[in-house]
Amino acid sequence: MKAELIAVGTELLLGEIVDINSPYLAGKLADHGINLYYISIVGDNRQRGLGVLQQALKRSDLVIISGGLGPTDDDLTRELVSAATGRELVEEPRVWAELEQWFLRRYGEDYHIPKHNRRQAQFPRGSRILGNGSGTAPGFLLDMGGKKLIALPGVPGELRDMFTREVEPLLPSLGGGRRLVTRNLNFVGIGESKLEELLGDLLATQTNPTLALYASGGKLRVRITARADSPEGASALIAPIEAQIKERAGEYFYGRDDETLEGVIGKQLTMRGLSLAVAESCTGGLISHTLTNVPGSSAYFERAFVVYSNRAKEDELGVPRELLKRYGAVSAEVAQAMAEGVRRQANTDYGVAVTGIAGPGGGTAEKPVGLVYIALASPGDTIVERHLWRGSREEIKHRTMLAALYLLWSQSKC
Amino acid sequence: MKAELIAVGTELLLGEIVDINSPYLAGKLADHGINLYYISIVGDNRQRGLGVLQQALKRSDLVIISGGLGPTDDDLTRELVSAATGRELVEEPRVWAELEQWFLRRYGEDYHIPKHNRRQAQFPRGSRILGNGSGTAPGFLLDMGGKKLIALPGVPGELRDMFTREVEPLLPSLGGGRRLVTRNLNFVGIGESKLEELLGDLLATQTNPTLALYASGGKLRVRITARADSPEGASALIAPIEAQIKERAGEYFYGRDDETLEGVIGKQLTMRGLSLAVAESCTGGLISHTLTNVPGSSAYFERAFVVYSNRAKEDELGVPRELLKRYGAVSAEVAQAMAEGVRRQANTDYGVAVTGIAGPGGGTAEKPVGLVYIALASPGDTIVERHLWRGSREEIKHRTMLAALYLLWSQSKC
Repeated sequence: MKAELIAVGTELLLGEIVDINSPYLAGKLADHGINLYYISIVGDNRQRGLGVLQQALKRSDLVIISGGLGPTDDDLTRELVSAATGRELVEEPRVWAELEQWFLRRYGEDYHIPKHNRRQAQFPRGSRILGNGSGTAPGFLLDMGGKKLIALPGVPGELRDMFTREVEPLLPSLGGGRRLVTRNLNFVGIGESKLEELLGDLLATQTNPTLALYASGGKLRVRITARADSPEGASALIAPIEAQIKERAGEYFYGRDDETLEGVIGKQLTMRGLSLAVAESCTGGLISHTLTNVPGSSAYFERAFVVYSNRAKEDELGVPRELLKRYGAVSAEVAQAMAEGVRRQANTDYGVAVTGIAGPGGGTAEKPVGLVYIALASPGDTIVERHLWRGSREEIKHRTMLAALYLLWSQSKC
Repeated sequence: MKAELIAVGTELLLGEIVDINSPYLAGKLADHGINLYYISIVGDNRQRGLGVLQQALKRSDLVIISGGLGPTDDDLTRELVSAATGRELVEEPRVWAELEQWFLRRYGEDYHIPKHNRRQAQFPRGSRILGNGSGTAPGFLLDMGGKKLIALPGVPGELRDMFTREVEPLLPSLGGGRRLVTRNLNFVGIGESKLEELLGDLLATQTNPTLALYASGGKLRVRITARADSPEGASALIAPIEAQIKERAGEYFYGRDDETLEGVIGKQLTMRGLSLAVAESCTGGLISHTLTNVPGSSAYFERAFVVYSNRAKEDELGVPRELLKRYGAVSAEVAQAMAEGVRRQANTDYGVAVTGIAGPGGGTAEKPVGLVYIALASPGDTIVERHLWRGSREEIKHRTMLAALYLLWSQSKC
């Protein structure tokens, strides 16, 4: 089975909007072991659209089109499919009735529904209608024996809804039963080349599963992909490789797939009944914001201070003025005082503090932009780390936040 | 001039990686008035790659290929261009010498450069080499009279570097001199349909410039695009439309293009010599993080409190326990007390406070998820707003932050 994707819409050719539907669909097809060979983007133009569609139906067995299902004159998908397959457009009374109801409910009983909206109830003869719960444009599936065509709305949320509910269940039969299972292992606190070194031979020699290493903004991900005749078979292939990887780099491994570092920290602290307070200078609230993205974080986190000036550090955390004068706000000494101060002020088990120069201004020869101190105060002691990042203000804030979370995570593990 | 983009790389067909090169290039072509009609993504496969390339050279005048310029056996772009254009691959001694130097500098004098890297110094005969400063793969441009082909590396940073330095200066002559100038007007604090209503006839009737309205996460953008023979001519077309738009919706207009709401707030506060402190509950640090993304924000912002529990609200801001017991933390009364408390505690001109239920848990029939109170305490008085958002925890945090910034901005204008 050879698949092909077509994304329709002139806005996709103007650089305004990124086609995120195609990568989404590509990932789903890959998960089901269906080979995708072409992705095409074409504008709202009859001639070019028809050309691309006809070529796709000729060279591929499964064609998925996204976009062009709206009510306006620029929405050509129904017509193009009709022209390319020779199946005339037929109105589905049930769909029109539902559309009517939706409009009248939304706009009132007296609302005069624009005539062109009627075309959204028209489908190439023989189509299976794919209901759309969240918008006004149902999609459709045309099974022509050797060739199959699926038309989905262009709005990403609507496409994913419709795909998950109505298309995905059909894929196993289309894919011939082969399944791809993917697992992502997430790492932090180690550089890309170092992790590559630790995993070396595994990355090079694996054929099934395959391994790939992705780096992004300080976080690393190892993607393990296994192909087998069933999800269970694929998972069985993954388990030993995952174990080997964890054996070599377990110190830096914090979670799988969608697990976030802040989520894992949350589980740890909740499980151990520990609490945390944060004092932020250069990160300006980012650490607290990240921690509080986790539902239930109020179980271990209940206050933080953004102490953006020396005065605020003195007032709120009791950092001695002497220390600020002697070492400066960006120093190991002040970071330690901030961490111990917030721990004391909030009466928590842990106190995390960061102080640094996010840039672009504010750097000196001695204390350049990107210089950051991170401190973690625990019942036992206080650890202070020094870092020097390169990058923009936002990158430096982000890297600092990650390093602070990593320190907290690695120290608070059982 | 008809342009076409081809992105080469099997990873783009697996859903792992989003092709962001094509939208980038599409935007650049649009800016220079060059019509783009097709974007294609194809894998590292000789037969399919050649087919797509041959088709592109037939139907389009300017073909830009990204990807496939690396040193491995999967990097086919040079071969494919050679096969499609009939120009044999020729080694450029200067390029090979530079590549050699790069490797030896990086890996040492004894390093044995892998043989396959030599192909990166080979180009279709007659190519103009596009130097690559940040990686190891130079691109090339082939001018074949009626047809032009440009090959760029697939790594987005490298592509943008090379494009900006070596390709963009050539575009005006390719585009025939027509220039597109775009200006974005940013709005907040008004709903999409309402803004559409206010701008109504302008949106419908404009042909040059054209207007388009984009909504994303509570922020609205009106994109004005004008086409003329020079950038100055295009700007002259934009000015009167911009004035008309501001006349109708100026109350909600905060900036153009890359100007951010927090940046505009920063300018306002700095200009008026005013200061600000923030008390966050449900937003967890997001407002402070956003405000401190602005360089120089320490001029007007020097402290904030994340008071995630009732206890913290009492301790740090002096919110009376009685108030918390009688009205609950999520109430207009407590929001007001928080805003006035932080203003007093920090001794600033303004105090901003938010309290609410970010979800997904924590809601009740009386106080559902998404209920949020925002308060702004000024020298004169305190304003409190009530909002009810739908969405995920992160969406509710984000919407609340925007509403808080909008309130601050609209109240602190001269």
